[in-house]
Amino acid sequence: MTAAAKPGDAVDAIDTPALVIDLDAMDRNIARMAAFAHQHGVRWRPHAKMHKSAALAQRLMAAGAVGACVQKTAEAEALAAGGVPDLYISNEVIAPAKLARVAALAHTLQLRGGRLAIAVDSALGVDRLTQALAGRTDAIDVFVEIDVGQGRCGVAPGPNAATLAQRIARSPALRLAGLQAYHGRAQHLRSADERRSAIAAVLQLVRDTHQAFADIGLPVPLVTGAGTGSMANEAASGVYGELQSGSFLFMDADYAANEADAAQPRFEHALFVKSQVISASARHAVCDAGHKSHAIDSGLPQVARPDGGVPWRYANGGDEHGLLHADDGQALPALGDTVWLIPGHCDPTVNLHDAMVGVRGGLVHGQVAELLPVDARGALR
Amino acid sequence: MTAAAKPGDAVDAIDTPALVIDLDAMDRNIARMAAFAHQHGVRWRPHAKMHKSAALAQRLMAAGAVGACVQKTAEAEALAAGGVPDLYISNEVIAPAKLARVAALAHTLQLRGGRLAIAVDSALGVDRLTQALAGRTDAIDVFVEIDVGQGRCGVAPGPNAATLAQRIARSPALRLAGLQAYHGRAQHLRSADERRSAIAAVLQLVRDTHQAFADIGLPVPLVTGAGTGSMANEAASGVYGELQSGSFLFMDADYAANEADAAQPRFEHALFVKSQVISASARHAVCDAGHKSHAIDSGLPQVARPDGGVPWRYANGGDEHGLLHADDGQALPALGDTVWLIPGHCDPTVNLHDAMVGVRGGLVHGQVAELLPVDARGALR
Repeated sequence: MTAAAKPGDAVDAIDTPALVIDLDAMDRNIARMAAFAHQHGVRWRPHAKMHKSAALAQRLMAAGAVGACVQKTAEAEALAAGGVPDLYISNEVIAPAKLARVAALAHTLQLRGGRLAIAVDSALGVDRLTQALAGRTDAIDVFVEIDVGQGRCGVAPGPNAATLAQRIARSPALRLAGLQAYHGRAQHLRSADERRSAIAAVLQLVRDTHQAFADIGLPVPLVTGAGTGSMANEAASGVYGELQSGSFLFMDADYAANEADAAQPRFEHALFVKSQVISASARHAVCDAGHKSHAIDSGLPQVARPDGGVPWRYANGGDEHGLLHADDGQALPALGDTVWLIPGHCDPTVNLHDAMVGVRGGLVHGQVAELLPVDARGALR
Repeated sequence: MTAAAKPGDAVDAIDTPALVIDLDAMDRNIARMAAFAHQHGVRWRPHAKMHKSAALAQRLMAAGAVGACVQKTAEAEALAAGGVPDLYISNEVIAPAKLARVAALAHTLQLRGGRLAIAVDSALGVDRLTQALAGRTDAIDVFVEIDVGQGRCGVAPGPNAATLAQRIARSPALRLAGLQAYHGRAQHLRSADERRSAIAAVLQLVRDTHQAFADIGLPVPLVTGAGTGSMANEAASGVYGELQSGSFLFMDADYAANEADAAQPRFEHALFVKSQVISASARHAVCDAGHKSHAIDSGLPQVARPDGGVPWRYANGGDEHGLLHADDGQALPALGDTVWLIPGHCDPTVNLHDAMVGVRGGLVHGQVAELLPVDARGALR
């Protein structure tokens, strides 16, 4: 596929639609996150399901992150191939053929001095992982995922989780690493108070599970979880040792719609879709970015006007088109004009692109500094 | 990326999530479409924005299609690289750098005895296309896109369209090929009567435009348009000479929700996401396919039960997960079980995958016949 731009190009010359990172804004977000984690004395392991880029995972580690989370075995493989040494599959894997890949990857990373960890929420998952690792010399880290309110994966907190942990502890191939306690829906509760209440309930469930582990003599070496919406609460809890927040890196329109939490840094939008008007009439303009260019599961993109103009309104024009409307008295963009979009949800948007165009010096007068391949694009399995 | 399967594998062995084509059902859909077009004496040029596969475009041509439509220059490039000789960009291109690629591709295809056509809806578009083609020996076919109710791209039907056509006719580099008249929204009107009424209005606008062309002495060599929802009407109109319907090949849950039109063949679901249960509790099961595996712009996927069981209900579990619920008294799928999903919208679903796994002999006892790369995946520009 023809690249959208090459290093040294002016921003104006980036072909459309293209996924563009404002690297200056991204770097500021990274610095804010690093300072936040340091201040709270917690590790951070940003979720790479969001950016899917080995280079960005390494950049985050250079800024202090301990490694990267992924959701899929194939994401772990893609990031490992790109040189990321410390990976955690924060999700369940049950297929024996995939678990064989998990075992092989764990071995590869161990040989390099790195490591692979994984979550489980069932006895079958523990047993199959044990079988897959049979005969390997090194044990791998396994987290018990508990359902702390998300209502998706995870064993029930408390005694059930402890029973599963015991099964892990008894497996020679596995090392009990702690608890995975992530409440995804809490990230998107709009008011800071709602998020605080939701995480307070989570903390109680985590403490109950701690107690259940203690009752049968098991440690909880680490509690890992949290996202960009709620992390002020997990970071200050004294319970979580590791934050998985990933979206802070780019921010998206959905996270920006949350009421700001004063206890948490403010992150800037750093990810944009650059699009161009390809058709124009008196009533609207049409740009070349539809939902094959940006995900719409968390709402349509918003229009950014880095030139300081009044933002147009974006309406869905299907897979390949977006409709732009102007407020009364405001001019529509003209044929050939650039339209900048802030995606509603960064994770599935990044997954639609082969590469991200990294820009320095802003979206108006800046230039392309680098192209960042989306290494784990479509790494579904 | 590791492939989901290899030819000869049993369906059971396909790794998940994977996009699976029931090739037997697809072949029946192709035969129905070929017979339908033949019966109506119209050409068919199925839209490859849907399947994005050079192999499928060629298979459709072997069954009688005259070529393929695409929406993007990069899609045309990807399909041409895969050997498809006759391509039509049914969309506007306005960036000079892209138009240079259009000109180069037109030349390449002409040298091979094929051709490239394109749509325009503005004087600027005509002028820039003319500039891009300056010095080339062969003219390329250009369709005037008119807005027949979609409210997206397209010049107004009637005299405005004729004025634009005259500009094309006067350009030495361009050959006036006719009208692009596509009403996308009409495809998804649920009742057959609503679709009939919508297309009746379209036909009147096309006839008005025919008249406006005639008034200034211009021909309308071909009217191209129609989709899988409405094509019974365009095919029988005597006005349309070419059908662009693409989704008939795979069908999706959204098109299947349309009331059937007795004047049109019934197409079968031929595209599925194979997924696996990775977490299970008493209240639901969780499969490994979320909206990174299937598009949800036209609704969530439906669950298919090729084994004859009562379908489970699919609820959104985010980017990587789907929640499965059972009706009262029905069993949930168990950990490790296969869950088959019928995507809500095939076009953006295909775009999420590197390859499609072609199966023969059905989804229960069949086996993998071939892997079909999604050649134009992410071909956005």
